[in-house]
Amino acid sequence: MTYCVGILTEAGLVMIADTRTNAGLDNIATFRKLHIFREPGRKLFALATAGNLGFTQSVISILREGLERADGRKETLLDQASMFEAAQFVGEVIRHVHRVDGAAIEQYGSSVEVSMLLGGQIAGQSLRLFMLYRAGNFIEATPDTPYLQIGEHKYGKPILDRAVTHRSELYDVLKLGLISMDSTMRSNLGVGLPIDILVLRRDALVPEVEHRIDAGEPYFHDLRERWSAALRKAHNDIPPPPYGPNAKP
Amino acid sequence: MTYCVGILTEAGLVMIADTRTNAGLDNIATFRKLHIFREPGRKLFALATAGNLGFTQSVISILREGLERADGRKETLLDQASMFEAAQFVGEVIRHVHRVDGAAIEQYGSSVEVSMLLGGQIAGQSLRLFMLYRAGNFIEATPDTPYLQIGEHKYGKPILDRAVTHRSELYDVLKLGLISMDSTMRSNLGVGLPIDILVLRRDALVPEVEHRIDAGEPYFHDLRERWSAALRKAHNDIPPPPYGPNAKP
Repeated sequence: MTYCVGILTEAGLVMIADTRTNAGLDNIATFRKLHIFREPGRKLFALATAGNLGFTQSVISILREGLERADGRKETLLDQASMFEAAQFVGEVIRHVHRVDGAAIEQYGSSVEVSMLLGGQIAGQSLRLFMLYRAGNFIEATPDTPYLQIGEHKYGKPILDRAVTHRSELYDVLKLGLISMDSTMRSNLGVGLPIDILVLRRDALVPEVEHRIDAGEPYFHDLRERWSAALRKAHNDIPPPPYGPNAKP
Repeated sequence: MTYCVGILTEAGLVMIADTRTNAGLDNIATFRKLHIFREPGRKLFALATAGNLGFTQSVISILREGLERADGRKETLLDQASMFEAAQFVGEVIRHVHRVDGAAIEQYGSSVEVSMLLGGQIAGQSLRLFMLYRAGNFIEATPDTPYLQIGEHKYGKPILDRAVTHRSELYDVLKLGLISMDSTMRSNLGVGLPIDILVLRRDALVPEVEHRIDAGEPYFHDLRERWSAALRKAHNDIPPPPYGPNAKP
């Protein structure tokens, strides 16, 4: 499994991805799912991937090495001139890999279900965040719905629904994303540490934070403990339901 | 959609079910999904259902009216002599409805995906809780895993994973179940009020609470408000992540 979330606010973009992959429960490994493509000061793209690992790695390789055009030229993700064209290009590469490998993968019973988050900015243009589906089509985050998730998204969604807005402070958004990741990790063993995080302030064009949270990191450990303690206190503080022996006269 | 949860603890059994059904988003209605079968003081069975409504209503009708045997005798759920036999009988009726209606339902593209929770007790025997799958097979709650869910289970699972134990007090369990229902209702419009609740104390054989929570009920409204406020406070109280401008020197 996988859990990745991207959150686009007024102040910037936060992307968070776990690193656990599994082919069955008896074959668990760590692979990076958050990939950065950069021309410092000019372009920064961050791509988070979920789904069949061979498929998504092929997509990443082609985005870096280039998709061959009819004239022999190789076109890369960094060649794209706008975020929208970048999202279209990732979609095109997804379709390309599907054409090349899809039938053979499915013939042996594996799934070619993939999804991706593409966030980033090109100098002089807007910071944007997209979610791509297996068909290569995509949607875009907006102020009304500032976050997009791929993979095992349900466990970590309630906290985002409650707390994240387009106006949220950037490190508050990072914190909420980490709480969302914690909820997911607790309920699905297929999502696990380390966690890769990216904080990209609007118009900065270089990451403000690009960091891997490993198992021993005190902040994340403390966040998990505090969140658990606060939830315990929160439900203890709610009065007992007024039914049965607690019924009000 | 549907969300139902059953929680079996040392003290007793709590079952909670929403009532929203939908055939598409443009056809939403209210139907009871928590059904009680009783012989007061002798037997009490509670059955919560998820899945194709026609299918689950057929199962409920046959459990009440009886499944015809080779000798013409009609056997009902209340005829069963143990909770295990009751679970087997529900499974048998699920298979029966599948044989009668399954092919025709699937022919028109509908799903016969169903699942059920069966909880209850027979005088002189143990209080037990089962979850039945569409194949009519089932698993049973144990002290290690005291709760079982059907339907849209993921949004409401984290709070149960964190807080419910076999030793939890019965009305604390009910409260946690209602918080779990609240989280689900916030993230999935297909799950909605009213909510049916049942509290059955071990060896009581009659419900201690059998109640429908309607939209205007102050306690549930207050629980939702308090839980939201506590979550806001909880994440506000966690220090900002120590990265970027917040990095410790």
